[in-house]
Amino acid sequence: MPLTIEPHVALQWIERVTAGGVRERVRDELAVEDPLEIRVDGAALAVAMRTPGEDEELAAGFLAGEGLIGGRDDIASIGPTEDLAANVVEVRTRSGLSRDPSGERRFAMSSSCGVCGKAALEFVTRTAPPVPQDAPALEPQAVLELPRAARAAQPGFERTGGLHATALFGPEAELLVLREDVGRHNAMDKAIGALLLRGRYPLPGVIACLSGRAAFELVQKASLARLAGVVAVGAPSTLAVELARERGMLLCGFVRDTSFNVYSGAERVGG
Amino acid sequence: MPLTIEPHVALQWIERVTAGGVRERVRDELAVEDPLEIRVDGAALAVAMRTPGEDEELAAGFLAGEGLIGGRDDIASIGPTEDLAANVVEVRTRSGLSRDPSGERRFAMSSSCGVCGKAALEFVTRTAPPVPQDAPALEPQAVLELPRAARAAQPGFERTGGLHATALFGPEAELLVLREDVGRHNAMDKAIGALLLRGRYPLPGVIACLSGRAAFELVQKASLARLAGVVAVGAPSTLAVELARERGMLLCGFVRDTSFNVYSGAERVGG
Repeated sequence: MPLTIEPHVALQWIERVTAGGVRERVRDELAVEDPLEIRVDGAALAVAMRTPGEDEELAAGFLAGEGLIGGRDDIASIGPTEDLAANVVEVRTRSGLSRDPSGERRFAMSSSCGVCGKAALEFVTRTAPPVPQDAPALEPQAVLELPRAARAAQPGFERTGGLHATALFGPEAELLVLREDVGRHNAMDKAIGALLLRGRYPLPGVIACLSGRAAFELVQKASLARLAGVVAVGAPSTLAVELARERGMLLCGFVRDTSFNVYSGAERVGG
Repeated sequence: MPLTIEPHVALQWIERVTAGGVRERVRDELAVEDPLEIRVDGAALAVAMRTPGEDEELAAGFLAGEGLIGGRDDIASIGPTEDLAANVVEVRTRSGLSRDPSGERRFAMSSSCGVCGKAALEFVTRTAPPVPQDAPALEPQAVLELPRAARAAQPGFERTGGLHATALFGPEAELLVLREDVGRHNAMDKAIGALLLRGRYPLPGVIACLSGRAAFELVQKASLARLAGVVAVGAPSTLAVELARERGMLLCGFVRDTSFNVYSGAERVGG
């Protein structure tokens, strides 16, 4: 059993082997992973493989990112179950979820079309308004600074190499919150959920900085939270780009030391 | 709309911006992402955000990795739906799934324990036998060669930076199959599913090489397929290491140019 030294990181004896055949027994730091069940109004809704910690934030952000709640006021209570079952977070809503998560399919389909990217885009555009035209512009230097600022505030990543991070920055590029997790979806859910639980949701003008790639579902969460943009160290996918363009959202990828790519909202990058 | 030039890769006009403020309009290659619905015996079971192509393999590998089918013989037919709905793959089983995917929870729980890593491990150990004691050993140099061989056969990754890959190697370190996808779970499902559809499942003696991190669910899929080991370029999580140790599986991580870490099964690395 690994020795958990803090919620995110555990120590484990392992062997390090080099090409020459040298073997060394070393104590390595690993990212902790454990399942979490999210229960809503008494019924199990989802199980996430997550890094323990900030479980209420994860649950709140997950529900918002799926369009199931619209903000803090929709939550009556959130926390451990009454019987204190481990790895379960129980959400009580004020008046139920905004839609039936099993009844209405997220990717609406007809027998002629099947599920498709178009239906996935339509789900988001039905649920979230586009980014306002007057969203603030960012200088190129400011875009390049976001991952640096996130990395400086992200202790676990450098140590385990196994944690993803999402940082949220306000309109003045001030760091609002940063969350880490073995799962990139969870890191984003936790960061957005942290602000939601403080009564701040949706989040217009806010920019998310991702330590990895920008897949569709991450841009979906950003869009439902009405973020102004997503800045990713890694690559976006085609459908992520389509969604960002459809919503007028800034989407940058491959943000490295001295350059980045703008996939959507180039008119909002100044300079 | 991006221009799809092959199933995995699409071209898109973007702007590249450098710190000095130089902006350039370039044509970039992106990894394609689109939803796929997996239907089993007429009912929708799951939607995966995947890179199109090898959809039957993805469905077959997914079902095997969840312990829902045991091999090719459990599949009566697999392919597009009769009404040819897009992005849907329809699986017809010979005699139903091995268990009710909604009825029995993968992470069995009681009210006193909740879901937990222990339950997740038990699900796998109930379903898959441990790796045989006489599984072949690997020289350190052979471990280091696997990611190189995978990278040489993985054209999309270098281009888009947005695809994960899983390569499966036979007991003589020969490449059996390599699959890429925006999702790391999908890449592994496709690789395992490709062999399953050729009638080869389970896969004792086979080693999976992953382009990224080794989370629990990837080691679960490997364990259900009875692979001898997993060799990952990235970091494993705590629960992935626990499962590999529990099953006697080789688990290497951070496999780089001249060194790697052994998290489980060190006795099977020779030299």
